[in-house]
Amino acid sequence: MQVVERNQCVFSFSGNHAPVLTVSSGECVILQTNDCFSGQIKKDQDLVTSIDYRKINPVTGLIFVEDALPGDVLRVEIIRISIEEQGVITTLPEIGTLIHRAETRTKVVQVIEGRTVLFSEKIQFDCAPMIGVIGVAPAEGEVACGHPGLHGGNLDTSCLMEGSTIYLPVFIPGALFGLGDLHASMGDGEMCGTGVEIAGQVEVRLTVLKDEPLRAPVIETSDSWYAVSSDHDVQSAVRKASESMQEMIAGRWQLTPTDAYLLMGAIGDVQMSQCCKPCPVETVVRVRMPKLEGLTGLIG
Amino acid sequence: MQVVERNQCVFSFSGNHAPVLTVSSGECVILQTNDCFSGQIKKDQDLVTSIDYRKINPVTGLIFVEDALPGDVLRVEIIRISIEEQGVITTLPEIGTLIHRAETRTKVVQVIEGRTVLFSEKIQFDCAPMIGVIGVAPAEGEVACGHPGLHGGNLDTSCLMEGSTIYLPVFIPGALFGLGDLHASMGDGEMCGTGVEIAGQVEVRLTVLKDEPLRAPVIETSDSWYAVSSDHDVQSAVRKASESMQEMIAGRWQLTPTDAYLLMGAIGDVQMSQCCKPCPVETVVRVRMPKLEGLTGLIG
Repeated sequence: MQVVERNQCVFSFSGNHAPVLTVSSGECVILQTNDCFSGQIKKDQDLVTSIDYRKINPVTGLIFVEDALPGDVLRVEIIRISIEEQGVITTLPEIGTLIHRAETRTKVVQVIEGRTVLFSEKIQFDCAPMIGVIGVAPAEGEVACGHPGLHGGNLDTSCLMEGSTIYLPVFIPGALFGLGDLHASMGDGEMCGTGVEIAGQVEVRLTVLKDEPLRAPVIETSDSWYAVSSDHDVQSAVRKASESMQEMIAGRWQLTPTDAYLLMGAIGDVQMSQCCKPCPVETVVRVRMPKLEGLTGLIG
Repeated sequence: MQVVERNQCVFSFSGNHAPVLTVSSGECVILQTNDCFSGQIKKDQDLVTSIDYRKINPVTGLIFVEDALPGDVLRVEIIRISIEEQGVITTLPEIGTLIHRAETRTKVVQVIEGRTVLFSEKIQFDCAPMIGVIGVAPAEGEVACGHPGLHGGNLDTSCLMEGSTIYLPVFIPGALFGLGDLHASMGDGEMCGTGVEIAGQVEVRLTVLKDEPLRAPVIETSDSWYAVSSDHDVQSAVRKASESMQEMIAGRWQLTPTDAYLLMGAIGDVQMSQCCKPCPVETVVRVRMPKLEGLTGLIG
């Protein structure tokens, strides 16, 4: 299997980046990733205020996927996520729901056997490895890897875990795919602006789907579908994700728009992905619909 | 066991209501409840636009709990929830994330063996019975049962299910407790403004806790703690719930405020309870912290 090393990285999604690898549709590839600080923080004394901010949120890639054309969908199956033995949690200046009640701090934590985070002598918790940044090049220009959008990007969504699949709209030939910003664990909403930031590697299978309309990222897990949307304003993000889910379930499950909406009230969930306000980065929300027996998938 | 019938109900939480029952601390009681429309909607042709809106969100009670004094905490263990055989989902004028893309509609649904909701011939889903409105009288005045607040009220929180416990601040002697607005199922955020609205009955154990500081509702489930907050603005609600959780875990788990915040970023979740904006009612959010091995409870 082909491997992309972590030094083959960029700090934005853009069609102007030269691809570091070309794969066929349906091929698996391993991407080694650096942490969101490009490894600049190694001990408690390394504060985010003294690192090079141009090196934030690297993604490994970008990868050219053969046959991917604008209007297609790139299906990304997350086959395996492995993480290293040391992670870091930090507060960030001017970011986070409790920034008015916290110091600028770094906390380095150890990961035991890939399973347990040692937060302190008394506090430990299970790892729940997930991908923070995953996406393709936008139609034009470049989007810094710290930002979310229709192309994916910094979605910081806890359901981007091993076994999940994300569907991304393709905007340019080859899609130009990349990912990075792993977390050993991240709370929904990422209240302090970071989770357990960590380096690692991810195996994905990249497949081009033709004739699939998709206007924004969709995530599939074993039991659920998620429409993902972002906006500076939380409520606008919720409305956009609701609209996406309404369109998908009305189309696939043959419901009127109003019936789709009633079903969403009864069993559809609004969930937070990224809402560490105040924050210059857009909020990310997801609307979940459980998979229901006897009904078709929402995509693919 | 004492039973309060569903016709013994009020439409606001207030110390001015005469109690319908007095119980000792630690006593169990059964409250029979009407649905949120006071049973005014029985078939698909009954639209919310033609019912008496003064009869919205009745709560059964209020119940005077002996020994409860201002500054105490009322612990409410939700021992059993049973629901009737027919529920109703509706859109509501000027409320809901997709109100610009839906008609005013009523959908009556059947509940089979208390376990399955028949949404249509092709679509069915599991029941997940929960309580929409639960609370005590505020310090002064009255709060309509459709509104949330520090006293509880219309929290519309899916974790208010059988087996959960909610802790409420006591504002007046006797607390004056009541509940209503059951749902056979309700999606987080309640996108269309209703879930599967249904009548039923709830068994609770009401216990007064002394010397427990509590400024807003807290919910306990088998594996989690939730700080619940409401505000017209989503981000303000998130900030307030974050503050409550930070104070609780810093106090109980002997963490500095910044360490509590870092732990919240790593494993604390921001979750939506009620966010069917546009809506005149405040948004309700909850911040979740998983129970961690070897650490004390956050209350009680």
